[in-house]
Amino acid sequence: MREVAVIGIGQSEFGKFPERSAASLGAEAVRAAIRDCGIAPKAIEVAYCARAYDANCTGQGILKEVGVRNIEIINVENACAGGATAFRGVWKEIADGRYDVGIAMGVESMTTSPIAGKLIPPEKTDLEGHLGLTMPGMFAMVACRQMEQGATVEDFAQVSVKNHHNGCLNPQAQYKKEFTVEQVLASKMICDPITLLMCCPNTDGAAATILCSMDVARKFTNHPIRVLSSALCSADYKYTQEDICASPVGVKVAKMAYEMAGVDPKDIDLVEMHDAFANEEILRYEDLMLCKPGEGIELLRSGATAIGGRIPVNPSGGLLSLGHPLSASGVRTVCEVVMHLRGQAGKRQTPNAKVGLAQMLGGLVSNLEHGAVAGIHILAR
Amino acid sequence: MREVAVIGIGQSEFGKFPERSAASLGAEAVRAAIRDCGIAPKAIEVAYCARAYDANCTGQGILKEVGVRNIEIINVENACAGGATAFRGVWKEIADGRYDVGIAMGVESMTTSPIAGKLIPPEKTDLEGHLGLTMPGMFAMVACRQMEQGATVEDFAQVSVKNHHNGCLNPQAQYKKEFTVEQVLASKMICDPITLLMCCPNTDGAAATILCSMDVARKFTNHPIRVLSSALCSADYKYTQEDICASPVGVKVAKMAYEMAGVDPKDIDLVEMHDAFANEEILRYEDLMLCKPGEGIELLRSGATAIGGRIPVNPSGGLLSLGHPLSASGVRTVCEVVMHLRGQAGKRQTPNAKVGLAQMLGGLVSNLEHGAVAGIHILAR
Repeated sequence: MREVAVIGIGQSEFGKFPERSAASLGAEAVRAAIRDCGIAPKAIEVAYCARAYDANCTGQGILKEVGVRNIEIINVENACAGGATAFRGVWKEIADGRYDVGIAMGVESMTTSPIAGKLIPPEKTDLEGHLGLTMPGMFAMVACRQMEQGATVEDFAQVSVKNHHNGCLNPQAQYKKEFTVEQVLASKMICDPITLLMCCPNTDGAAATILCSMDVARKFTNHPIRVLSSALCSADYKYTQEDICASPVGVKVAKMAYEMAGVDPKDIDLVEMHDAFANEEILRYEDLMLCKPGEGIELLRSGATAIGGRIPVNPSGGLLSLGHPLSASGVRTVCEVVMHLRGQAGKRQTPNAKVGLAQMLGGLVSNLEHGAVAGIHILAR
Repeated sequence: MREVAVIGIGQSEFGKFPERSAASLGAEAVRAAIRDCGIAPKAIEVAYCARAYDANCTGQGILKEVGVRNIEIINVENACAGGATAFRGVWKEIADGRYDVGIAMGVESMTTSPIAGKLIPPEKTDLEGHLGLTMPGMFAMVACRQMEQGATVEDFAQVSVKNHHNGCLNPQAQYKKEFTVEQVLASKMICDPITLLMCCPNTDGAAATILCSMDVARKFTNHPIRVLSSALCSADYKYTQEDICASPVGVKVAKMAYEMAGVDPKDIDLVEMHDAFANEEILRYEDLMLCKPGEGIELLRSGATAIGGRIPVNPSGGLLSLGHPLSASGVRTVCEVVMHLRGQAGKRQTPNAKVGLAQMLGGLVSNLEHGAVAGIHILAR
């Protein structure tokens, strides 16, 4: 298996753009990634594009706008882990020697999707969904269990405070506004104990990364960012399991990623992860073994996951503040990690970052019935 | 690169089943494929699932129903070539040695999709689509050009007559009814010269194939079906090109597939292909080099592409009669080819079939703006 490098990263603006097409957002990200590394568009040999809603040859639509034609294009979907799936797809193509240069794209136009302004609807056969178990409902149930185990609503609010603070340091964030714990708790109640500011927003946006073999990478840079590991797995994610807070697939994929990369969780300098709801981030600390099981709340309270802490989590602002265009997020998290590894993250830079981890979890409300997907990539300079 | 075999094939019923979910159709096909080869579901290590409409972790939903969990699942979309993309995805995983056993699935529930009972709608930015250039409209334009070059409406009708005859010999076909040329021409005019019986129907259905390394295959059968080649490419498919009838990407992918397989078009014993509209099949004869350029009409008129002819095309009944659940078709065509190579195709069997070709073309009406996808797999016993 060949070593793979990321040489180009790009993001579109993140926000609500009902007048823009997904192809236009995607093309903005792709152009940025091409500019970032200076590669000729015609050098791109393969593309994976993630999109969950209204996917209709989206990759072809995007690449046509930037003049990339006559290549193999695979459109993928894996809920919020679609972007991680696209990134992994390109990584495989290059690692396995099938192609030398590829682009991974993710895009979502939430405001023009069939679910614009709505909650993600339950599937026809999802009885619990139809009875009211929406995404916020599910995470609120989880939050209640976390509170039984020692978390407070202030802890959840603190995640939102932290990530909104980080978003203020990121020119690309959808929301750049500081909030206090009190303000987060006083925002509109969505599903007790989850308030509006503990929920990620609806976001339109796209991200792209250009990957290549190490041979090619060295033509463009003396400092390629290496992909140390790629891991993805789907799991039965039943909430009938003993502990509603557990994510067996999240833990499994984390172990796979660390083992393949040959690094220990304590070697990780920063993490970008799925924080669709504020309380979720605390659980993921434990899944990713940033702390011991049961010590996620303490890790948060210690300030270790804030910018400047021992292991900054979501320095980008995360889904909560940077925004969450579903299928784009798994590519966008890689872009953020690359920025830190390159020392290009500006005011939110993780000092001397050598190894970073990009995680994304996906699943439907019908996680209850279907499956969740976890995808993790560990990168290093 | 390792040699890959197909050991299991399965299809759901094809028809209109508004009461059935996509997961249920998919699970029916997967169960059939598992029964076909007798493999333990837990031996399946990776899955690709194609679906174009309402794709929401469809692969996870299907596999949950058959008890396959904790594996890597990738949902793909490439319009009508989605199934070919899924098949190729699994083929790559095994050819590249990443996994030993995988399943490729395709499913579409057209009657429950947002476009149920409608034409495939144009994208927001597809100006020509909004002005009326629907799929039938596009193929009608192509048909007019074919008629300038010597085809007659009777030729187009004859393709429908042939494929509906074939469907009568296939217990799995959605429509099992013979038609005469006169009846096809007398059916409702959809877009001159294309009549209703020259259009593929709306179909709900699913198909699945189990692929594995040759080592694994030999544990299950003494007669594995080998995948000789896999080729997929997207292209700019502009109708501003000199000849509206040409499919440069179709020709390119055909050449790639023949070269990789090391076979000549004349070595092919049967072909399953995209006949979304009757006139299209004639063009594809030429793309696939079953005859010389410009001789597609003669090939049809000679009877060579009928069952019992030199090179049967769409002995299954094709999209016109067997039905066309969009993303399922690219997997289903492989199932049909495998049946013939095994000698299991009953009344429609191609005698002594040794090598078969499964082709699928995909694209939106906005082919005009976006891209088309061609996927071809050549298989042999």
